[in-house]
Amino acid sequence: MSKPFVAINYIDCNADYKERFEELFGSRAKAIDTMPGFKFMNVLKPITNDAPYLIVSYWDTEEQFKAWTSSHEFIEGHKRGFEDIRKAKEEGKQPPMTSTFRTYTVIAD
Amino acid sequence: MSKPFVAINYIDCNADYKERFEELFGSRAKAIDTMPGFKFMNVLKPITNDAPYLIVSYWDTEEQFKAWTSSHEFIEGHKRGFEDIRKAKEEGKQPPMTSTFRTYTVIAD
Repeated sequence: MSKPFVAINYIDCNADYKERFEELFGSRAKAIDTMPGFKFMNVLKPITNDAPYLIVSYWDTEEQFKAWTSSHEFIEGHKRGFEDIRKAKEEGKQPPMTSTFRTYTVIAD
Repeated sequence: MSKPFVAINYIDCNADYKERFEELFGSRAKAIDTMPGFKFMNVLKPITNDAPYLIVSYWDTEEQFKAWTSSHEFIEGHKRGFEDIRKAKEEGKQPPMTSTFRTYTVIAD
């Protein structure tokens, strides 16, 4: 068995977008759950308010994760959030959220 | 059921300490695994080299996590790393690793 692959998206949310952000994930379509190699995911909300949210997903391999991010289901599943960002841009506003993406391997458990 | 509590320690390791750091976790005593409320832990190694390592642990409650960090087993389990930091200080060197600690609740899975 190779070591599991972990993807974490660090999301900085504007204060007035947090409720909407949490609602989007609370009502997610769960398409990711059916992807080959997917193990589990979690959305982590920081207890300290000014820290980023974390979207964490565990995969058998990096390739399987990449297959997810380039899938039709990924685009479909992120449509509402992408649309919010597009609208803000159109109105000349700051994006409601920004993200930093990092990848990991599990070296101990 | 309350939402799981997640603790993440972000560890910045000096380049020449990474091998030692990975060795310490690879040979951990696993005392944490027997603590009440402990669910699981992972040590995540960044695929991009300059990012911090993540020590992630999932608990039923924050109180149970705090009980772990103030336990005899915690002190015992971290003795080798603490000793490395103490020695560096004694020799007037930079600490081999520094850590930033953040806590989370799981809001979606």
